[in-house]
Amino acid sequence: MSLQMALEVVRSSPDSLTSQIQRFIKEEIAAGVLHPGTRLPSSRRLAGDLDVSRSVVVEAYGQLVAEGYLEAAQGSGTRVVEHLSRQDTVVPTLLDEGWIPAVRWDLRTGARNTPAFPRQEWLACYQRALQAAGPESHAYPPLAGMGELRLELARYLGRVRGVRADPADLLVVSGFAQALGLLCGVLPQLGVTEVAVEDPGHPGQRQFVRESGLRPVPVPVDEEGIDVGALARTGVRAVVVTPAHQFPTGVGLSPERRAALVGWAREVDGWVVEDDYDGSLWYERGGRPLALQRLDPERVVYAGTASKTLAPGLRLGWVAAPPRLLGPLLRHRARHDLGTESLTQLAFAELLRSGLFDRHLRRLTALGRSRREALTEAVRRHLPGTTVLGVRAGLHAYLRLPPGTDEAEVVAGALRRSVLVRGGAGFHARWSWDAPALVVGHAHLPRSAITEAVRRLGSVGPWADPPASPRPGSSAASAGRRWS
Amino acid sequence: MSLQMALEVVRSSPDSLTSQIQRFIKEEIAAGVLHPGTRLPSSRRLAGDLDVSRSVVVEAYGQLVAEGYLEAAQGSGTRVVEHLSRQDTVVPTLLDEGWIPAVRWDLRTGARNTPAFPRQEWLACYQRALQAAGPESHAYPPLAGMGELRLELARYLGRVRGVRADPADLLVVSGFAQALGLLCGVLPQLGVTEVAVEDPGHPGQRQFVRESGLRPVPVPVDEEGIDVGALARTGVRAVVVTPAHQFPTGVGLSPERRAALVGWAREVDGWVVEDDYDGSLWYERGGRPLALQRLDPERVVYAGTASKTLAPGLRLGWVAAPPRLLGPLLRHRARHDLGTESLTQLAFAELLRSGLFDRHLRRLTALGRSRREALTEAVRRHLPGTTVLGVRAGLHAYLRLPPGTDEAEVVAGALRRSVLVRGGAGFHARWSWDAPALVVGHAHLPRSAITEAVRRLGSVGPWADPPASPRPGSSAASAGRRWS
Repeated sequence: MSLQMALEVVRSSPDSLTSQIQRFIKEEIAAGVLHPGTRLPSSRRLAGDLDVSRSVVVEAYGQLVAEGYLEAAQGSGTRVVEHLSRQDTVVPTLLDEGWIPAVRWDLRTGARNTPAFPRQEWLACYQRALQAAGPESHAYPPLAGMGELRLELARYLGRVRGVRADPADLLVVSGFAQALGLLCGVLPQLGVTEVAVEDPGHPGQRQFVRESGLRPVPVPVDEEGIDVGALARTGVRAVVVTPAHQFPTGVGLSPERRAALVGWAREVDGWVVEDDYDGSLWYERGGRPLALQRLDPERVVYAGTASKTLAPGLRLGWVAAPPRLLGPLLRHRARHDLGTESLTQLAFAELLRSGLFDRHLRRLTALGRSRREALTEAVRRHLPGTTVLGVRAGLHAYLRLPPGTDEAEVVAGALRRSVLVRGGAGFHARWSWDAPALVVGHAHLPRSAITEAVRRLGSVGPWADPPASPRPGSSAASAGRRWS
Repeated sequence: MSLQMALEVVRSSPDSLTSQIQRFIKEEIAAGVLHPGTRLPSSRRLAGDLDVSRSVVVEAYGQLVAEGYLEAAQGSGTRVVEHLSRQDTVVPTLLDEGWIPAVRWDLRTGARNTPAFPRQEWLACYQRALQAAGPESHAYPPLAGMGELRLELARYLGRVRGVRADPADLLVVSGFAQALGLLCGVLPQLGVTEVAVEDPGHPGQRQFVRESGLRPVPVPVDEEGIDVGALARTGVRAVVVTPAHQFPTGVGLSPERRAALVGWAREVDGWVVEDDYDGSLWYERGGRPLALQRLDPERVVYAGTASKTLAPGLRLGWVAAPPRLLGPLLRHRARHDLGTESLTQLAFAELLRSGLFDRHLRRLTALGRSRREALTEAVRRHLPGTTVLGVRAGLHAYLRLPPGTDEAEVVAGALRRSVLVRGGAGFHARWSWDAPALVVGHAHLPRSAITEAVRRLGSVGPWADPPASPRPGSSAASAGRRWS
């Protein structure tokens, strides 16, 4: 049966093809156009009809399955699920979460890819904060955040990330998404309507920028991080970067590029938004890169989050902003909400003040090192020819697959073996990706699960039976090689 | 010394004159145009220059003093404070809070006018929720709110407010401000760019609507609530109302008007936003008005908040929305934040589930009755000729002053006696108010403080020494009279 489906993709869109397909299918389901139980064309067929890589369709289907929109039954193809509540049809743009049927190993980055929440420490701090809270703590919180938290954050960010900021420069927000939303609301007031983003980068972030009414402009990333020359040629005046641990490639922005980026911002009277999403999680001894912001606090907006170190559910983030932006950001915020929940702010302030947060980070660091070892060892053993990148820090790794590997085949094969993993193609804004890769989130998995998931990957694609002969460069050493 | 100040007001603006003056002064201070220590003209002088009632200026100055922008020194007039941090210069538009120098009795409605937070009960519920929380509770919360809370809210709202909604119709938001912000973002997609608001009404709400890019259209309120005939004549297709306990007059929307309002909405294919800000606090036996929403859940958007019953600091509110609006609201929200903090939602769900919230409400009701008695008795004794309105419910009362009273003189005299209270004029969008009144928040004050504050009011304005002779209608009975 060769099913058809009315669907169009726009190659020039800043959205990846994968996310265009995903969004289209979601919207058609929400609109009642694609009815429950409807069978969809096979990924091979649809990819052919659209003239895109099969990997793109496989990944879109895989994610829609994971989010509960589609179901993939053995032998009977992919179909729209029978029971879908109204609520389920709207999904946050920056999220990857969702109910995961028949997927036992979820290697995606995003919502669930976070370490265990430090329940007892958090509760102790919440309790202390609540006991100490006077009536003013229960009133509307200051729009910029509770004074207690801004003080502790200024100390922490200076000490651990080298951020140059007074408490008065800080703005507590309900997660990085709100920070980005506020910036997208304020930048047009400064004459900025285009925002450069890293390519590859976070597809949800590109979409978020676009839906906020600005134009995202992808700029290539190489072994040293974002290409500042290419950035300058775009003519834009604002950019969002991940200097400590580029998402998803894991490279660090080189010292030369850092200087060039700040120089660019000064030259064009522009702004750099530093998304330091996982900068507090560093696994190597020494050499931890400090915040880019310290090079020029007047040009760099620093943004951090508790999502990677505590939990996304806390909806807690912070921004260190130059004075020229801080006022407009606060005024803009006053039109959207009236501040971030007080007690959560006070509990986090107490977690920082008491040193319990540092202790938690030390635990996370030890766990991260251990997961990194498990991953590197499993890749060396089961995925010969693959290079592991970006494991100096953070919660994910970037696996560069052997040249010529069919990325889509690996992703599809993995799903058949109950492993959900994303191919590199989904993170690219431009359809020019010829380096097959996988982006692997590992923070929520024990060592044994990482090992087993990678072992299963080792039976698909180029590693499938009959065993492929080892490719050039697939030495044990290459698994540890990094770009920077 | 007769100081001047460059300042203009727009009589046709939907903003009240008071809030225009306040905003102008704040902005000039923030911009560094009005320097620290600068003396300002007297309220009498400025009112004369602007050709407005002195009450308007007195109130604007009084609030700027309370918010820490200005200081009023005995004998040396009003001046800009010497030390104002950058953060202090941005104040949320819906708030009334702030540091209050030299004011011992703050009778304003708003941020601090809330009963004591039930610390032990909340902590117990937070702890239970945290103990029960699985990893999914720490992931990004569903945009519409945690399932546990939507279930408990649907039960509670049906039981206590007669709201007709399933959990799937509900959206948990970070306070009513966010609900209004989302609605203002979505209504233009439905062809609605003007929103009717009650007059008198919440000045911050009018401003919020305007800053969201929509035009607020004031519609008069009388003894039965909003004038639906006048509403129909405006030609708008959306309105925000407070049917249970109109803000600030305290009148209830009559059954006839309720039916007419819903009929209007159907006729014009329009929307009614029901701001049920204090509908859970009802002090009379029997006769509690149910939610307007139950008359037509397809046309009425119901919005509630925890700000009046628990604390504004929780930033917790909820919306029951018709299907036609719910999807757009969620999609719009995905561009601003990624949901409301999870653990706070789960703790509130547990507070509802356990019955502790109902117990808390019973306590609040007893306290509210007691405060009402104290206020009514003190007004009867110290403010002869004054009628107390709107004390069947909620956290504030509306005092209709004797005809001919100089409202501004009462407000200014009260401030000199360390009592900060708002005149009725500040709540009017149109400058046509000839009924002097005070709006008195009493939730945060013990009985003795209410009595003492009213006693002090009794020595200013028409009640100042030498004692004014009782005016017609100033019988003890009139203090208990109500409009509806």
